[in-house]
Amino acid sequence: MQTKNSKAFGAESAQAPLKEMNIQRREVTPTDVEIEILYCGVCHSDLHSARNDWGGTIYPVVPGHEIVGRITKIGNQVTQLKVGDIGAVGCMVDSCGQCDSCEHGHEQYCRNGHTLTYNGPDKYLGGVTYGGYSERIIVDEKFVLKVPKNLDLPAVAPLLCAGITTWSPLRHWGVTKGSKVAVIGLGGLGHMAIKLAHGLGAEVTLFSRTPNKKQDALKLGAHHVIISTDGEQMQSVKGKFDLIIDTVPYVHDINPYVTTLNYNGTLVLVGYLGDLNPMLNTVPLIMGRKSVAGSVIGGIAETQELLDFCGEHNIVSDIEIINIQDINAAYERMLKSDVKYRFVIDMASLKK
Amino acid sequence: MQTKNSKAFGAESAQAPLKEMNIQRREVTPTDVEIEILYCGVCHSDLHSARNDWGGTIYPVVPGHEIVGRITKIGNQVTQLKVGDIGAVGCMVDSCGQCDSCEHGHEQYCRNGHTLTYNGPDKYLGGVTYGGYSERIIVDEKFVLKVPKNLDLPAVAPLLCAGITTWSPLRHWGVTKGSKVAVIGLGGLGHMAIKLAHGLGAEVTLFSRTPNKKQDALKLGAHHVIISTDGEQMQSVKGKFDLIIDTVPYVHDINPYVTTLNYNGTLVLVGYLGDLNPMLNTVPLIMGRKSVAGSVIGGIAETQELLDFCGEHNIVSDIEIINIQDINAAYERMLKSDVKYRFVIDMASLKK
Repeated sequence: MQTKNSKAFGAESAQAPLKEMNIQRREVTPTDVEIEILYCGVCHSDLHSARNDWGGTIYPVVPGHEIVGRITKIGNQVTQLKVGDIGAVGCMVDSCGQCDSCEHGHEQYCRNGHTLTYNGPDKYLGGVTYGGYSERIIVDEKFVLKVPKNLDLPAVAPLLCAGITTWSPLRHWGVTKGSKVAVIGLGGLGHMAIKLAHGLGAEVTLFSRTPNKKQDALKLGAHHVIISTDGEQMQSVKGKFDLIIDTVPYVHDINPYVTTLNYNGTLVLVGYLGDLNPMLNTVPLIMGRKSVAGSVIGGIAETQELLDFCGEHNIVSDIEIINIQDINAAYERMLKSDVKYRFVIDMASLKK
Repeated sequence: MQTKNSKAFGAESAQAPLKEMNIQRREVTPTDVEIEILYCGVCHSDLHSARNDWGGTIYPVVPGHEIVGRITKIGNQVTQLKVGDIGAVGCMVDSCGQCDSCEHGHEQYCRNGHTLTYNGPDKYLGGVTYGGYSERIIVDEKFVLKVPKNLDLPAVAPLLCAGITTWSPLRHWGVTKGSKVAVIGLGGLGHMAIKLAHGLGAEVTLFSRTPNKKQDALKLGAHHVIISTDGEQMQSVKGKFDLIIDTVPYVHDINPYVTTLNYNGTLVLVGYLGDLNPMLNTVPLIMGRKSVAGSVIGGIAETQELLDFCGEHNIVSDIEIINIQDINAAYERMLKSDVKYRFVIDMASLKK
């Protein structure tokens, strides 16, 4: 298969900082589009993958799955996109397309395994896929999203992961006008959850450990902020929420939040992979028909729905634009939650 | 308020065996019916309450919340029942009737606290309510169910707790023809879950720790039995089930069962109150949008729906009839799961 040399930024090992490297991209197949990447958001997963925090990273790894760019070439069977269009790519670049999950538009739960945008098995070239920290990417058009023209392009990038990760549970659990939604944690995911729940007409509460995020949360669209370390404030929202989106990426006690669910309510974890420690107590679950659930990203049709919704409601991410050369410093700041609320790489910097 | 002396069987303390005693029952108010109790099922909760295993028992305690009997007196505002009818009473005898839970027919999640059939605060006489191990009970007609005439009366009694406890989650999570349902544990709750899921047209699997329950499970309506200690068998049902009803009443590891849920599937705990130990791992929840939930009994309208469904499908509990004098021995046998599948007390024995 013909390939094209492409500049990228990636890590050679778990200990190595990211640096410039060359990767091979396939030439477009009949159903592919080639995208010149303009902006790429920086997700916590990028850092975890680069440093092999979850195991399974194959090096070199080129992270990046919040991709916005311009289409520069299309295969001869591409029908929905044309050269010059703005296209976006999220966490997946392929799935089996045959299983019931794919048929229902839930490619994120593909039974045969979807292909992740980076560090997934590359079925064209062998090895693994390379992500958005690169000058171009070639993707089957079915996995390329259209971007509403009215939105600020760099600020659209985080919608492709942080946005869809919170949008999918909001939609799946039927959030609508008047729903009582709480969000745990105000980071990349949390700030999108607030904006999107607000956009859907929900009454939105942020749970935060410290009062200093209150003004920001209200500005983002939260109606209330509850300090989770304040027993009295926690008691005041007992039994209140229809849905809680828990964006916290590290181990934490979810039991106090479960008691703030309304009966029939659901707490959905989108950030933390691991054991629930301390142990989850079943009494509030049973006595209030409550659920603890999880959710990962979203399907392709659902992602397009999100982008269209954001176009209509003029919602984008709050971002800080960086050059690719600053990525290692950005990772360090991200670890300290020192970003409001998402770094986005201006990929023009890769050409420097 | 006028009261009537009534024979009953109860416990004077956590250490004492149950014995005959006298209790006071109120005279019927305008909306009450008086029921001569014919049969009362024996639930695990009866034993836990008698022995104060969960704390909070107020003595003397008269257990029993699977009650079937004949109506012997009605208040002058009672419209739905008449003297001579067969009536049934489950775990609740009252609720606030005003909150949104009650208004939606979910009295089991009443925000102001429903009144349990026994050991709940008695708003008429003070003290606590007394349950079905007694010759009669007086209950507001709104909490009295009608029993289809074609069903075997003693075998109806367990529908009022074991039946509705499994029916409610089957209905809430939308089980229908072709749904893939698994049941963990084959006891009072488990055998009802199998019968009811089968009745709804589901494909039913029993998880059991030992092979010796297989024939019984198939007879009850299960299509498959999976031995949960057999890794190969567990692997064969990975990702299969839409709903798992977990009836196990003691601490156990639910993680292996979560992996057998289909994406979007739910494991609902109905038997175990306490911490999930070992800890629940969030990875399968997140990667398959799975839920772990709880559920307790069911609403009054839902209980009537269950009884009507059982009438149409000729479903009752498998029972062993005992005299009230044998209740202490029955508790010991129940602790050893030595009953297929529910003891029911013939309350005529109380008159001996």
